[in-house]
Amino acid sequence: MNTRAEKGMKRDQRTAILEAGARLINLQGFHNTGLKDILETAGVPRGSFYFYFKSKEDFGLALIDHFMRVLGDRIRPLLEDESLSPLGRLRLVFERARQRYQSEDFAGGCPIGNLSQEMSDLSPAMRQRLQQALAGMTARWAALLRQAAEKGEISPGIDPDLMAGFLLDAWEGALMRMKVERNAEPLERFEQILFSGLLAR
Amino acid sequence: MNTRAEKGMKRDQRTAILEAGARLINLQGFHNTGLKDILETAGVPRGSFYFYFKSKEDFGLALIDHFMRVLGDRIRPLLEDESLSPLGRLRLVFERARQRYQSEDFAGGCPIGNLSQEMSDLSPAMRQRLQQALAGMTARWAALLRQAAEKGEISPGIDPDLMAGFLLDAWEGALMRMKVERNAEPLERFEQILFSGLLAR
Repeated sequence: MNTRAEKGMKRDQRTAILEAGARLINLQGFHNTGLKDILETAGVPRGSFYFYFKSKEDFGLALIDHFMRVLGDRIRPLLEDESLSPLGRLRLVFERARQRYQSEDFAGGCPIGNLSQEMSDLSPAMRQRLQQALAGMTARWAALLRQAAEKGEISPGIDPDLMAGFLLDAWEGALMRMKVERNAEPLERFEQILFSGLLAR
Repeated sequence: MNTRAEKGMKRDQRTAILEAGARLINLQGFHNTGLKDILETAGVPRGSFYFYFKSKEDFGLALIDHFMRVLGDRIRPLLEDESLSPLGRLRLVFERARQRYQSEDFAGGCPIGNLSQEMSDLSPAMRQRLQQALAGMTARWAALLRQAAEKGEISPGIDPDLMAGFLLDAWEGALMRMKVERNAEPLERFEQILFSGLLAR
């Protein structure tokens, strides 16, 4: 095997571990999911884990980056869709998310929210990485709200940064409630209050 | 030892286990906290656990009831304070909660939110109990919003039930973000948007 193929395989194994871990951990929790299960699901030999990750915490950090990459790839085309107004794009982000959660039978919820809830008090490194992830999402939403304000789509009194932070928290809370209710109601309620009340001009 | 004293001791031991469990689990998670630690912290012999609880899940259900009792005892005097207007009472609920979380250095967060996030997909029984707990809180807030609407304190267009559900989710989301940020900003933001925007008439 040449070095290039080896590197390719290694990259694939690392990705396979991350993808298996992402699925299992989002349904079972970080502590409650053993490395053994992740590696078996990934089809990667048990000895390989520590070749790619220094520790389970190090894996947790890579997992946050993985989630943010997946989320970014999913949201970017919506946020950049010039055929829609800024508010129309924001509406589409939540609508698509709701449809996806529906297809997952409302289980699992938001990986970033789940890890935030579980790991913030247990791992300073993960807490910091989650903080960055949430700050990045907030900034993206604030930029969209700023564009919506420029187009006169939302009430001019709205502070985009404050509102974006509030919306992200409210969205995470709605996703948590969705897991408890096992239906779309909390997400629909969020969209209704958001677009008919909070942002309406 | 007579039966009455025995019963008293048993009740105290059960409460001691619940109180120790509440503290540990809210900081470390349900799965991540061992019964051994809970019983040691409670100062209760290790064999006693299964005298009071059929299983860890059964303990989890009792823990949800315990949290709701503690929360109810804390909030009731505020909600019933006739010297304040309905909106004034709601404001005080969030202000006092923020001060309490500050005194806890913004760690732990909301026990009901934490268990919802961690256990909804893992225990149907706990999910159902959490659902009831959250529905009970929503109803309490909806009643307060209804009173506020009658007094003309909030915008008449607000649907009390819809808004109460949204607010509870947004509050849970703000508490999650607080754990990540380790400061009061998400809670202050929630209060600001709530009282200067969302409910303002």
